[in-house]
Amino acid sequence: MKKSEQYRVPGFLANGIHAGIKPDGQNDLALIYSQVPATAAGLFTTNCFKAAPVLLDMERIRGGQVQAVVANSGVANAATGEQGYADALSVSKAVSERLRIDDELVQVASTGVIGHRIPLGKIKAGMGKLVKGLSPDGIPEAEAGIMTTDRFPKIALRKVAIGPKEVTLCGIAKGAGMIEPNMATMLAFVMTDAAVDREVLENLFRRAVGGSFNAVTVDGCMSTNDTALILANGMAGNRTIGRGSRYAGPFAEALASLTVELARGLVRDGEGATKLIEITVEEARTIRDAQKVAYAVANSNLVKTAFFGGDPNWGRIISAAGSVGIDLPVDDVKLFFDDCPLFAKGKGVTGRGAELAGIMKRPEIRVRLTLGMGSRSWTVCTSDLSFDYVKINAHYHT
Amino acid sequence: MKKSEQYRVPGFLANGIHAGIKPDGQNDLALIYSQVPATAAGLFTTNCFKAAPVLLDMERIRGGQVQAVVANSGVANAATGEQGYADALSVSKAVSERLRIDDELVQVASTGVIGHRIPLGKIKAGMGKLVKGLSPDGIPEAEAGIMTTDRFPKIALRKVAIGPKEVTLCGIAKGAGMIEPNMATMLAFVMTDAAVDREVLENLFRRAVGGSFNAVTVDGCMSTNDTALILANGMAGNRTIGRGSRYAGPFAEALASLTVELARGLVRDGEGATKLIEITVEEARTIRDAQKVAYAVANSNLVKTAFFGGDPNWGRIISAAGSVGIDLPVDDVKLFFDDCPLFAKGKGVTGRGAELAGIMKRPEIRVRLTLGMGSRSWTVCTSDLSFDYVKINAHYHT
Repeated sequence: MKKSEQYRVPGFLANGIHAGIKPDGQNDLALIYSQVPATAAGLFTTNCFKAAPVLLDMERIRGGQVQAVVANSGVANAATGEQGYADALSVSKAVSERLRIDDELVQVASTGVIGHRIPLGKIKAGMGKLVKGLSPDGIPEAEAGIMTTDRFPKIALRKVAIGPKEVTLCGIAKGAGMIEPNMATMLAFVMTDAAVDREVLENLFRRAVGGSFNAVTVDGCMSTNDTALILANGMAGNRTIGRGSRYAGPFAEALASLTVELARGLVRDGEGATKLIEITVEEARTIRDAQKVAYAVANSNLVKTAFFGGDPNWGRIISAAGSVGIDLPVDDVKLFFDDCPLFAKGKGVTGRGAELAGIMKRPEIRVRLTLGMGSRSWTVCTSDLSFDYVKINAHYHT
Repeated sequence: MKKSEQYRVPGFLANGIHAGIKPDGQNDLALIYSQVPATAAGLFTTNCFKAAPVLLDMERIRGGQVQAVVANSGVANAATGEQGYADALSVSKAVSERLRIDDELVQVASTGVIGHRIPLGKIKAGMGKLVKGLSPDGIPEAEAGIMTTDRFPKIALRKVAIGPKEVTLCGIAKGAGMIEPNMATMLAFVMTDAAVDREVLENLFRRAVGGSFNAVTVDGCMSTNDTALILANGMAGNRTIGRGSRYAGPFAEALASLTVELARGLVRDGEGATKLIEITVEEARTIRDAQKVAYAVANSNLVKTAFFGGDPNWGRIISAAGSVGIDLPVDDVKLFFDDCPLFAKGKGVTGRGAELAGIMKRPEIRVRLTLGMGSRSWTVCTSDLSFDYVKINAHYHT
């Protein structure tokens, strides 16, 4: 089996081409097409300065059905005003006319430089080739079309039994946070042939995204273009997963595990990242409290540079945790790296230097902070902060 | 006049020595002494993991009087449990016994590595020399004693007429945010010979700190040791500045301008900083809103790296502003660098490239974001994010 065949989802065709937007000849235009209109749900950036395609998608997704997703990389079509919105509509129209589908069933996504118009001429000129090349094996090509400075593709697959039927889920994603120099965006598209009730799909997707894409951070920056879509076209022929269905659980589990795999890929491929750090805050009074502490630690430049330097600098972690405005019981707070204790009873734990030195060399490190205040927890993944992060983000000119 | 004589405040003696805490022979122990008990106010970190000296000072400052401040650099005496508190008490005792003053009138401050005990033996051994060398010209020596990786001293002076009397204010400060590798702390001590009512002093100091030390950020990290103290010993013989006094205004102005000068020094000397960026958010509905937006921009790594790279990357600024959860009127928001417009009416302003290139080369850049929502504003100063920030913070081992 060729690699591309691994990523087939019944009823879905996809393709990616170089339309001439990016200067390097790489794919920059992607299309996902479902042979029948799919039940769909979408989650979008909460940034006020939403890119034009995000505004368009948010209106359309209310209809609950999507049949095609077109995405370009290189230019974000963000902060482009009414012209940008008209441009997104034009792209949509070019797709729907070629595919002979209802224009309202097209979702548009862009990722790249903020403040520039997308090159409509190039996109329209490439549309014939893009549509003609649609194939059941085209998902990896589409994935390549949404990559910007990503160093490796983010593509994941799950299969799960729904009664006598096996359904497939396949997801592609790019860019953690604002991963590229003044580039906007996390894009993630999940395709499945499962039949799922729309409301259930939306709830399960929201939950999956909450525990995956919304639980990772590279630089704490929320982009103007973040878009996550799921399309469920029902081609598997399973009995529709509705509210209270016994199969909602297994499907949700597969979806959650798929999105977590993609999200961790985003962090591992974060700008300049050399390590993945999983931060779990336990024994918080509320989930909101656990999140506050986890994000404060995950987004602390002092913590992130310490991990880059391989230094088990627990002082920076407790200092970040202590600064969020929650009245922590100082003497009950405990800190562990993997299973090694670093802080307890209000002071540092000594004598574990050798063990810690070994842990700090690992490519993935688990940081666990127990607050002793309750029973809620939250986990967030982050990357370290390296010279390359500064290099990538400073040495780029608009 | 020698430089040190510039920084005399009637009734205050100071000194700084090398007690052997720092390995490089630099001053690491400082003492400020008022010949009479001074009316005093203090502001401290809100971090839960307060260092031992902070806990001690917070109790004592309630008494409203301070006669001596002893500070060491090199070790923060933070996360040291009960032993750390006992150590801070020992330092205080060594000072009060030598000076023959009430122990309750001593404030203790530490800055340096978290999680280590302060070297009590060295501090006690140096106390004789420290006290013996107290001098009206010793303020710069004391300033040197609280420096850690600071590249230049932060010391400022103001004189202001209070009726027929002239009063002097002199302040010293160190360390913006957690300026050194796992070092904690901003310390600032202001000395004045003015007679000021205690409640008034506290209010004016709180306001001054709010607009200065609390309006700067290097890495958004709040330390375990942040301490700002003001001592007003009344030796100028002015009529006490009380509530409603006509001299509260001029005194407040001098105090505000003094603390702003010190705070801007902290940013200019921020870890790896090459530029000072002053971010003003105007036309916000509330000050809280203005602060939220200003800090989101000031602490965005993408914004800070862009300034390091000299790139007028307005997309990152509006994206940071749009992510704080305030529903900004996108089409009314305007962005300026100095007086050059970059963003208005929902999109970028074009044709100002040459002007912007000139602005980006300046060592201080004013960023102005007008929200079009109200009349409140807030200004925060930040530094850029450079290779040296990563270097300083990664290549240090605990």
